[in-house]
Amino acid sequence: MDSGRLEAFSDGVFAVAITILALNLAVAGPGPGHKSLADQLFNHWPAFAAYAVSFATIGIIWVNHHTLFKNFSEIDRTLLFLNLLLLFFVVSIPFATSTIAAYLKSGGHDASLAAAIFQGVFEGMSISFGVLFWWSIRHEHMKVAFTPAAARRATIRFGIGNVGYIAAIGIAFVSPTASLVISGLVAIYYIFEQTPARETASATAESLPGTDPEDG
Amino acid sequence: MDSGRLEAFSDGVFAVAITILALNLAVAGPGPGHKSLADQLFNHWPAFAAYAVSFATIGIIWVNHHTLFKNFSEIDRTLLFLNLLLLFFVVSIPFATSTIAAYLKSGGHDASLAAAIFQGVFEGMSISFGVLFWWSIRHEHMKVAFTPAAARRATIRFGIGNVGYIAAIGIAFVSPTASLVISGLVAIYYIFEQTPARETASATAESLPGTDPEDG
Amino acid sequence: MDSGRLEAFSDGVFAVAITILALNLAVAGPGPGHKSLADQLFNHWPAFAAYAVSFATIGIIWVNHHTLFKNFSEIDRTLLFLNLLLLFFVVSIPFATSTIAAYLKSGGHDASLAAAIFQGVFEGMSISFGVLFWWSIRHEHMKVAFTPAAARRATIRFGIGNVGYIAAIGIAFVSPTASLVISGLVAIYYIFEQTPARETASATAESLPGTDPEDG
Amino acid sequence: MDSGRLEAFSDGVFAVAITILALNLAVAGPGPGHKSLADQLFNHWPAFAAYAVSFATIGIIWVNHHTLFKNFSEIDRTLLFLNLLLLFFVVSIPFATSTIAAYLKSGGHDASLAAAIFQGVFEGMSISFGVLFWWSIRHEHMKVAFTPAAARRATIRFGIGNVGYIAAIGIAFVSPTASLVISGLVAIYYIFEQTPARETASATAESLPGTDPEDG
Repeated sequence: MDSGRLEAFSDGVFAVAITILALNLAVAGPGPGHKSLADQLFNHWPAFAAYAVSFATIGIIWVNHHTLFKNFSEIDRTLLFLNLLLLFFVVSIPFATSTIAAYLKSGGHDASLAAAIFQGVFEGMSISFGVLFWWSIRHEHMKVAFTPAAARRATIRFGIGNVGYIAAIGIAFVSPTASLVISGLVAIYYIFEQTPARETASATAESLPGTDPEDG
Repeated sequence: MDSGRLEAFSDGVFAVAITILALNLAVAGPGPGHKSLADQLFNHWPAFAAYAVSFATIGIIWVNHHTLFKNFSEIDRTLLFLNLLLLFFVVSIPFATSTIAAYLKSGGHDASLAAAIFQGVFEGMSISFGVLFWWSIRHEHMKVAFTPAAARRATIRFGIGNVGYIAAIGIAFVSPTASLVISGLVAIYYIFEQTPARETASATAESLPGTDPEDG
Repeated sequence: MDSGRLEAFSDGVFAVAITILALNLAVAGPGPGHKSLADQLFNHWPAFAAYAVSFATIGIIWVNHHTLFKNFSEIDRTLLFLNLLLLFFVVSIPFATSTIAAYLKSGGHDASLAAAIFQGVFEGMSISFGVLFWWSIRHEHMKVAFTPAAARRATIRFGIGNVGYIAAIGIAFVSPTASLVISGLVAIYYIFEQTPARETASATAESLPGTDPEDG
Repeated sequence: MDSGRLEAFSDGVFAVAITILALNLAVAGPGPGHKSLADQLFNHWPAFAAYAVSFATIGIIWVNHHTLFKNFSEIDRTLLFLNLLLLFFVVSIPFATSTIAAYLKSGGHDASLAAAIFQGVFEGMSISFGVLFWWSIRHEHMKVAFTPAAARRATIRFGIGNVGYIAAIGIAFVSPTASLVISGLVAIYYIFEQTPARETASATAESLPGTDPEDG
């Protein structure tokens, strides 16, 4: 089969997951003895910070998913299930986000555990994407094969984000807030960095004015 | 890449955001000493008003998104991320809507803040759309280039909605309800007004009986 | 523009609305002095009945939407907004469903009002669909024009469902449960009945073994 | 009509259902006298187990849906409604999952009933898929007809999963946890097993290195 329906289903999951992230922002309505809205929102800052990081992370993984799959010539059953594994972690992100939002200010072991789960889900997503990528290179599903140099560069780039998440899991037990900052930095890194899939693919696409210059 | 998958993902986000708006309408079930359903719904009017305004606003931005992207010849990485910025504000609309719905009747600073957040999210969405539009003109991603006159008219039209939202943020601190009315009027304005993208694009499409006459 | 993206967005809204209907089925978890699960589910029957009726109704309107739009040659701005009006009522169905589910057993004016809102949202959806249909015939957006006889039959069929919902609004004030039964019967009627759009369209499609025989 | 829009709508429903499964994982936030996050997550294990089983089951039915529909030459009204019946059970899965998650640890009749509902929804989904499959063979909607041997193998394979779910309904009244394990095993079985639709279809598709070897 071609990759059309796999992408449609994946896009649906990405779209729902990224949109329900915001359900977690809701503040309590007015009631007897309630705090002012400004105070509530101010105290609610971990929810907004976690929302921003998770939104950016899902957005980036969507961009990379897109970039990878448009170069696929054929989807087989193994790829379908590797993709489902990736989506399993994507679907878990709203849960991980609401947990860190609720517990970040508690401090102590609860905050560390919540931050470690948050980073662990991101790491799971990152590894699944890596397996998908590695498997697709190895089994020659690409329309345009990677050069060995491109595959090497891809591994290095992938490794950088991966190391970021693993470090963030460890740091969660020292400072949960610092760990949240790290995953935000990883997201910013991937906004400006790109998988080599695009580099290779763009060699076959027509080059247009306004396209970003490629590095390497 | 062509714009197909960007539109599919964006449509998913628009569709989920517009549909979960209605989750906020839910009234409490019957319970000991509860008020009649009619009373509850009557007291709930800010939720219905905010729902109507947000539904119309998301609907219109979807129509305009559609109109803009069908004229794109090529999507690059910068456009993907500018589009994600737009979606970030779209995804925040259900939160802003539930906040104004909960606090509009509280009056005082809480209601003003809730209304200002509501209008601020709309303004953020409007600015993101403007940046996307401006960037696409500047970088010549269009299949059919704008004439300078069309680009000028587009800027004026865009400016009108934008001024509406900025005014509504200010008015939120005087009368939150008046501010909600203004964003409703902006939505009605955009139903009848159109971006020039369509004007230009329609010159290349076949003209059919029943098509609205274009202005200018 | 062609109807592709309008259908994609509408499908997204239909899919989200039909899926979040089931959120309303949730029963309370076990707690101190809670009733048995069997009792809770039994007492919860209005939620299951309303879910079944709303699921069938959204499913049918999706089938009919599909049937109508595949015969469209061109979508203009007016059609986009008429379609948004239809989606406005579709998006309101989960709210109407949870309200009737919560209040049907209360009896009295609350149950009647809840049932009337439920039927009113269905009637609003039905009228929007009718306007969309009428407008598309009048403005010649169809690939294959309707014969006058086909248009007449369509009006009659549309009228039957419409009369059902209007009757159900009235009956809501006598017996809310009977009104729910009526909207269930309307759904069953439309499963077996079809809009003439299909009849006309199928004249241009290849006829295959196993296709249902058309009436008229 | 071709199967495009049916697949798009179905994909939307699958995507929403699989994503909202995770809403049920949410733990209570910190509060007076609350248990530690680690304790809460540990006590919450039925939610995680049920989530994993339901995610895998929806994922697999999506893969099989995909495999079946890509071999369809024509979709008629009966297939649309059989597909809606399948989606009715898919949409019910988040409800069944949250019910078993809430009641599995209660033991007694509540846990058994919750497990039986969970398995019953899976069995309903499985039977609907079977009817869809049987109907499509019988009415010759396939681009490539099944050989009698392939249809026989399909029936046997389908029967194995089906027997699993029926057994799990019975076992729910002896051990709800064992019943959950069985549906997890059925999911694993279907990951490695495949419907013959793919076998037949792949005869017409180009064979590529890296495609899994077919059995039979």
